[in-house]
Amino acid sequence: MAVATWHFADRFIEASRSLGNPLCVGLDPHLERIPHGFGVRLDDLGGEATANGVESFFVAVLDSCAGKVPIVKPQIAFFEQLGWRGIRALERIVAHARDRGLLVLLDAKRGDIGSTAQAYAQSYLWPESPCHADALTLNPYLGLDSLEPFVAASRSHGVGLFVLARTSNPGASDFQSLLVDGEPLYQRVARALAPVSDALRGASGWSNLGVVAGATYPEESERLRQVLPHTLFLVPGYGAQGAPVSSALRGFVRHGGRLEGGMVSSSRGILFGTGPLEASRRSSVAEWHRDFVTRLDTSRDEVGAAVALAG
Amino acid sequence: MAVATWHFADRFIEASRSLGNPLCVGLDPHLERIPHGFGVRLDDLGGEATANGVESFFVAVLDSCAGKVPIVKPQIAFFEQLGWRGIRALERIVAHARDRGLLVLLDAKRGDIGSTAQAYAQSYLWPESPCHADALTLNPYLGLDSLEPFVAASRSHGVGLFVLARTSNPGASDFQSLLVDGEPLYQRVARALAPVSDALRGASGWSNLGVVAGATYPEESERLRQVLPHTLFLVPGYGAQGAPVSSALRGFVRHGGRLEGGMVSSSRGILFGTGPLEASRRSSVAEWHRDFVTRLDTSRDEVGAAVALAG
Repeated sequence: MAVATWHFADRFIEASRSLGNPLCVGLDPHLERIPHGFGVRLDDLGGEATANGVESFFVAVLDSCAGKVPIVKPQIAFFEQLGWRGIRALERIVAHARDRGLLVLLDAKRGDIGSTAQAYAQSYLWPESPCHADALTLNPYLGLDSLEPFVAASRSHGVGLFVLARTSNPGASDFQSLLVDGEPLYQRVARALAPVSDALRGASGWSNLGVVAGATYPEESERLRQVLPHTLFLVPGYGAQGAPVSSALRGFVRHGGRLEGGMVSSSRGILFGTGPLEASRRSSVAEWHRDFVTRLDTSRDEVGAAVALAG
Repeated sequence: MAVATWHFADRFIEASRSLGNPLCVGLDPHLERIPHGFGVRLDDLGGEATANGVESFFVAVLDSCAGKVPIVKPQIAFFEQLGWRGIRALERIVAHARDRGLLVLLDAKRGDIGSTAQAYAQSYLWPESPCHADALTLNPYLGLDSLEPFVAASRSHGVGLFVLARTSNPGASDFQSLLVDGEPLYQRVARALAPVSDALRGASGWSNLGVVAGATYPEESERLRQVLPHTLFLVPGYGAQGAPVSSALRGFVRHGGRLEGGMVSSSRGILFGTGPLEASRRSSVAEWHRDFVTRLDTSRDEVGAAVALAG
């Protein structure tokens, strides 16, 4: 996989073209589903054994993902839950993913102001960051000035930013869908982001400013696409949250005989399947690994076929 | 200082009555202002020396705060910036603060859905959390269901929650002030939170569900108070961000001859003053400590006088 350019969106588009799919594997360590053999101890979340077990689990995941999918998305909450040893494990996992040629989108949904936003950007998006990701998810509630330090990091270091627009949970409509001058808030957020997105476009035409657009609301993805023609969509909710791949791709656009314009993310569905929790934890490491690779290949083929079929 | 109850708001009210002020000292390690003698190395943010220097700095801060103010507010971004060693330092600082009888409100502005929100609650609000705070700031953009795991933690463990309503930055108006059916979004968010707030009231009458209400918009604090009569306000922006104490207290209400109803927060202004950056870093540890205690006492007296004068 060639990652020749500095610009996140360009690198993502190049990788997903060459690999034939825009699948994003979410790295959510649901501890109670990790096979016992990895050594995770549910009665000692902050301990060394648990952090080491999570690290081993994801090294195995990443080694199977390399060369198959363009990008992975660690969910930082599950690492924070393990205390400082969890963050140390996350730093190592992120570095390992990048070593294996995978792009890393850190799902942290940060949002704060001024020097605090600057500190978050410095935590994850600078080349010298202890946990150096290629892209980060952000929350827009605090306003456009809260995004500035992240946009500056994108300009200087080519990193990607994914701002929450329409999320995939039932309660998303509580505020995101409220009507402002006749249009829903998420659309208004998207409209406010449009000039920033335009300013961060790369050679591929796609921008380093992306948005999160939940797969459970496909019509809304289409509306977002009208406002943000050059913005990558991070589409969570494919797989475990029940949305079919056709819904997940509704905001994508035709380009060179394929559908393009974002990444489709699945976490639990690929990592653990949908079987009973106890069975998941009791399976051997080898059994889990075999089943995981099967699910990974199936998801990749499904998403790959869906973007290609449009040609 | 007696902290006899389990309910965050009750403990905060009791402590601020007994200490005579509702001042919250923000723990924001602006590294370039920490006196050189603490050993912070700006060229090695992720290193052991920097994390140890930040820890020593805040142990000194906390030892001076104990018995003078009811609550401190670490800003997690500045610790994340230091990598896992920064989180380890934060865990120790939070534990030290609680040991010294200070309440700890962790400023993390987290917001996510389902099992991810649950993981955040477990990271900071459970008795067995590696970083066990008394209260946490939250972002409402993802909707009411995203708050549920935090509300459940409040019910089980008595912790406080502070949801962003109206923040103190200039860009806050980009989305928070947009009109929805004739009222600003932040007011709509507040209205949606009102039943949750009512359900989490303690013996003091105040609720464990609070909101963030920036001191730079005092009229808006008054409007929030109308919708949320029993909700504590976290009022940032006093001090360094320039708002006078009278503005910061505009959402407070008279109770027993005093103003009550929240906490007034100052970070940089108290920790470092407003002098030139270089002078701050070059002062000796003893000089900084003497000046810090003076600023702490001055702020405490100013805020204390302002809430008492109303009687």
